[in-house]
Amino acid sequence: MIRVGIVGGTGYTGVELLRILALHPDVAITIVTSRSDAGKRVDELYPNLRGFVDAVFVEPSAEALANCDVVFFATPNGTAMRMTEALLAQGVKVIDLSADFRLKDPAVWTQWYGEPHISPHLLEEAVYGLPEVNRALIRSAQLIACPGCYPTSVQLALLPLIESGAIRLERIIADVKSGVSGAGRKAEIPILMSETGESLKAYSVKGHRHWPEIKQGLEQVAGQAVGLTFVPHLIPMIRGIHATVYAELNVGHSDLQVLFEERYLTEPFVDVLPAGSHPDTRNVRGVNRCQIAVHRPLAGNTVVILSVIDNLVKGAAGQAVQNMNLMFGLEETTGLRSIGLYP
Amino acid sequence: MIRVGIVGGTGYTGVELLRILALHPDVAITIVTSRSDAGKRVDELYPNLRGFVDAVFVEPSAEALANCDVVFFATPNGTAMRMTEALLAQGVKVIDLSADFRLKDPAVWTQWYGEPHISPHLLEEAVYGLPEVNRALIRSAQLIACPGCYPTSVQLALLPLIESGAIRLERIIADVKSGVSGAGRKAEIPILMSETGESLKAYSVKGHRHWPEIKQGLEQVAGQAVGLTFVPHLIPMIRGIHATVYAELNVGHSDLQVLFEERYLTEPFVDVLPAGSHPDTRNVRGVNRCQIAVHRPLAGNTVVILSVIDNLVKGAAGQAVQNMNLMFGLEETTGLRSIGLYP
Amino acid sequence: MIRVGIVGGTGYTGVELLRILALHPDVAITIVTSRSDAGKRVDELYPNLRGFVDAVFVEPSAEALANCDVVFFATPNGTAMRMTEALLAQGVKVIDLSADFRLKDPAVWTQWYGEPHISPHLLEEAVYGLPEVNRALIRSAQLIACPGCYPTSVQLALLPLIESGAIRLERIIADVKSGVSGAGRKAEIPILMSETGESLKAYSVKGHRHWPEIKQGLEQVAGQAVGLTFVPHLIPMIRGIHATVYAELNVGHSDLQVLFEERYLTEPFVDVLPAGSHPDTRNVRGVNRCQIAVHRPLAGNTVVILSVIDNLVKGAAGQAVQNMNLMFGLEETTGLRSIGLYP
Amino acid sequence: MIRVGIVGGTGYTGVELLRILALHPDVAITIVTSRSDAGKRVDELYPNLRGFVDAVFVEPSAEALANCDVVFFATPNGTAMRMTEALLAQGVKVIDLSADFRLKDPAVWTQWYGEPHISPHLLEEAVYGLPEVNRALIRSAQLIACPGCYPTSVQLALLPLIESGAIRLERIIADVKSGVSGAGRKAEIPILMSETGESLKAYSVKGHRHWPEIKQGLEQVAGQAVGLTFVPHLIPMIRGIHATVYAELNVGHSDLQVLFEERYLTEPFVDVLPAGSHPDTRNVRGVNRCQIAVHRPLAGNTVVILSVIDNLVKGAAGQAVQNMNLMFGLEETTGLRSIGLYP
Repeated sequence: MIRVGIVGGTGYTGVELLRILALHPDVAITIVTSRSDAGKRVDELYPNLRGFVDAVFVEPSAEALANCDVVFFATPNGTAMRMTEALLAQGVKVIDLSADFRLKDPAVWTQWYGEPHISPHLLEEAVYGLPEVNRALIRSAQLIACPGCYPTSVQLALLPLIESGAIRLERIIADVKSGVSGAGRKAEIPILMSETGESLKAYSVKGHRHWPEIKQGLEQVAGQAVGLTFVPHLIPMIRGIHATVYAELNVGHSDLQVLFEERYLTEPFVDVLPAGSHPDTRNVRGVNRCQIAVHRPLAGNTVVILSVIDNLVKGAAGQAVQNMNLMFGLEETTGLRSIGLYP
Repeated sequence: MIRVGIVGGTGYTGVELLRILALHPDVAITIVTSRSDAGKRVDELYPNLRGFVDAVFVEPSAEALANCDVVFFATPNGTAMRMTEALLAQGVKVIDLSADFRLKDPAVWTQWYGEPHISPHLLEEAVYGLPEVNRALIRSAQLIACPGCYPTSVQLALLPLIESGAIRLERIIADVKSGVSGAGRKAEIPILMSETGESLKAYSVKGHRHWPEIKQGLEQVAGQAVGLTFVPHLIPMIRGIHATVYAELNVGHSDLQVLFEERYLTEPFVDVLPAGSHPDTRNVRGVNRCQIAVHRPLAGNTVVILSVIDNLVKGAAGQAVQNMNLMFGLEETTGLRSIGLYP
Repeated sequence: MIRVGIVGGTGYTGVELLRILALHPDVAITIVTSRSDAGKRVDELYPNLRGFVDAVFVEPSAEALANCDVVFFATPNGTAMRMTEALLAQGVKVIDLSADFRLKDPAVWTQWYGEPHISPHLLEEAVYGLPEVNRALIRSAQLIACPGCYPTSVQLALLPLIESGAIRLERIIADVKSGVSGAGRKAEIPILMSETGESLKAYSVKGHRHWPEIKQGLEQVAGQAVGLTFVPHLIPMIRGIHATVYAELNVGHSDLQVLFEERYLTEPFVDVLPAGSHPDTRNVRGVNRCQIAVHRPLAGNTVVILSVIDNLVKGAAGQAVQNMNLMFGLEETTGLRSIGLYP
Repeated sequence: MIRVGIVGGTGYTGVELLRILALHPDVAITIVTSRSDAGKRVDELYPNLRGFVDAVFVEPSAEALANCDVVFFATPNGTAMRMTEALLAQGVKVIDLSADFRLKDPAVWTQWYGEPHISPHLLEEAVYGLPEVNRALIRSAQLIACPGCYPTSVQLALLPLIESGAIRLERIIADVKSGVSGAGRKAEIPILMSETGESLKAYSVKGHRHWPEIKQGLEQVAGQAVGLTFVPHLIPMIRGIHATVYAELNVGHSDLQVLFEERYLTEPFVDVLPAGSHPDTRNVRGVNRCQIAVHRPLAGNTVVILSVIDNLVKGAAGQAVQNMNLMFGLEETTGLRSIGLYP
């Protein structure tokens, strides 16, 4: 059994990790930390876990965590970069769900996250945990930077097109819609039911932290600069991301449906829908899956890719467990074969 | 492997059966029928099932169904009572999720369902599939009448009180709130998003079909007449039932928290919450579980029981599979151990 | 023009007052206070008011408020009781939307609100602002205690029955459902979209602050003790209250539909629906109106009353303006004639 | 008083017209037609109108409608083009909220609406009822084609940029999100609460009927061809449209904030928000208003315009009344000065 520690178990990615790991056949949840709720039973905070998780939140401590095989950070940005080095030194693998190790350039990180990076030397070592791109590296990694939710949906939408050279790279537009759980479990007025229900808005149009991450990922694949406009929107629902991505096709491109189907043929968690489909976020809710459809409106030279994930699963906790499976040599789908609720 | 047939696979209880049975280790889905969608792939209608269910809807036929070990009816009322006898005659077990076999008295059935009962002789043979009451009978049954969603939530709320004689039986009030999926997948204006979103209403106050079913179940346990007022409400959400049940305590009653905990101590799918709790419907969404809390407001002689289920799982498809497990001698929880999404 | 001041303009009852008063033909909004947002334009916080409200939030000050004809308190409990006496002394009328003056007995107030009452001598002077009961007193009042949202919906449901002696008073049950805006505009995790969306729960079953208020109101009408069980529920919608009230009929009661229609015949804001109706909260959203239906399920001796209001309008700001109209000798409906959105 | 007839009063644009016109000081609602509900009181179907609309639905008849000064068509596509000529011949003005007269080219109309146009000669005469473009023509028009909801939001977002030549016209992208009421009041499974709640999807990506309408409108302003990609999305809310529009700036463009503010300075129903704003659809819900913000993400050469309306008001019934006011020489804002609900 893999001994697992979770740092920051009280947020939504934390409880989602617990939901998945509690039924994972090869995992023993060894420690779940929370500064704010230490001493409280986990299932008191999250009654959905009653009967499945018997843990009590404890204060994070280096000793207790050092006893794990792998530690997940489900913490706000800025925590993992302060604790990771010590864990790695003791042979503990680290999977960070926060943004601390996602960007390769510490200067860019500082620009977007507003403080100096504490462990810049780990940025190069960290493997960006998008298995559809970095599977081989993930298998041997000690430190995984799990992709953000928006970046997962947008990169999976664009990979086949960029890898095949089908689109122009100067002017890609990603209009992305997210449920409110993406904003986390924080006592803040703008994410109240009364503020977000029955209404819709864009936010951070001038620049969002996931923009440099998406750009870095696309440029790594493209091998050149990519011009990207990214606009996130807050949708009156809890879970789900829908990326609508627009790009201009180069002449002579191949059949797009075939291109996508072949690219993702062996991917266990990317599902290319039949031609003409429009994915619903519902159909991937609660499951580690990206469903994608590709369109050419009115047969023009603009390609529109529709890509949906559950922001807390393929966009966070599920993808983290997928990475863990790869790192420990397990079947990649272990503990992740479930079906979305309909309706 | 148990060969399973599903009649009426296009409704919400049908797709929910498919979601559960597709991952059930001892089941092979042999046939899924639909008159309206025959010839269409099941996962075309329900893309959440892609990769898990490979079936195509077929017209219902006696021959194909006779080849099953068990047939689930997820049909509108009035279908199962026309097909069950032939199936039973061929040794096929039947689990009916509709209302056809729930009431023992054919006259009462006719009064509430508006037509004569086609197979009144089967009403006595049918076992009411509430395992918390009828577990032994279910194990040996050939025909199961799965309880309605409202009746499941209300009966589980009242069982410990009635069995122990703790409450007066003349005037029980069940104020029950349901998500919209309880109304089914039907093209009807009153259940449109625009009609049900951001609004709330009671319905069928003058009398609802689940009233005689609840009354029959309570009276069987009580061994005498029960006075019941039942008011259902339509809530702007998709899944979930919350029953708020009010009764008057007899003098000299025991500790209610202990009473409930002891009654449900060994029940795998009924979870009595700690004293003072208020269950959320969310915490049982997608799972076969009833969470219950019991209160005495201001220490008076009125007891208030709060009982939540997912109407499509413990209130329908999950309970049906629980019955199947019992009928086939499997571990009762097989295929039903899952955790509700939070948030 | 009536010079109006609003203390606490940043909460939901505050912005609702502004929405109504900005179009009221006889009102000039003179001052809107907020400690937290002083110096900020009101329409910066509430862009729905752009072009209609030109005010800037200011710190509350006795001098500025003394210049008003009437001051509305849309503040948390405990503020109005500290400022009202000084305002009254300067001839300013006060309409309090908080709970400070709703209960007549200071000991009961302290028991439920957790601190001594600062101005107990004003409790007797304050008029409970339910025009359907106290219209004459309101006309000459200097200090109005606006009813709570739950108490408004429940009392209007019961008035005709209690006044006419139609029901037994020992065991009334009020099962009430509220949208989330009733919890106010506070940075608290339990009212996040992710916590309240797509889910439903009861709360404060052991005892809610509106219980003594409802009880006091009913007992004043009845002239004797009333046994009341009151259970509030949180519903996944923003606005709206639906009270479902249960009582036992005395023998020989009159026609209930006629009883309600006659009682409310001349009430401008209480609308008795045709027999057999089920009111939707939607139909009163945004408007100062209570819609009521009365039922006898299965022709038994239990009466069920369904009563809907918008918690922020007839349950708060609209009722406050209705009181103001009465206090200043205006037509009672001035500024309040609007139609609910459908859908 | 203007004698008004409404053909097709049972849909959502019909009831919205009734809500607005019932409080319009210069209007008498003379006739409301419905084939399906003839003989039924209007307020029986729409209880929000109780006390405000005393009409009974009648069968549509030429005689009754000929007695009106103006007739609104709130009908499915294909009805108005069959009845308009006769009404115009009798001197009745016509305001069509359907799509029958929106496109100038009958061949294009046929291509998108699937049948020959019955009154192609009226297409030229019809004035496209977007007052921000055609105010002068509207004043003297006999026949108004009210813009679609999506086209209103997108055209208002682009007008200042196209008129001023600030953007390149070859590749404009309009990613637009709509509440479910835009799909109308029809008994169809895809718009059930259970199908649309808590989920999000794009639809009609290959080509939507509003695409030629938007393109025609933009090209009329530009005086040249415009390349437009338009993708509509269905959002889990009832009312509201949010257009997110992307275009490439020409070099040397002026200050965009000033450009928008000046363009809409005197427009009563277009509100340019302060620089850096993100409009919520909530803030215009129920009111005839478009709120707009303009951004240049990361100071690049892509302009992003955010434009919100209520699809049933500025996107339908409100705009229709705005047109009526202009046609009858009334103050343009008559009956339309209201404030959106918050929250």
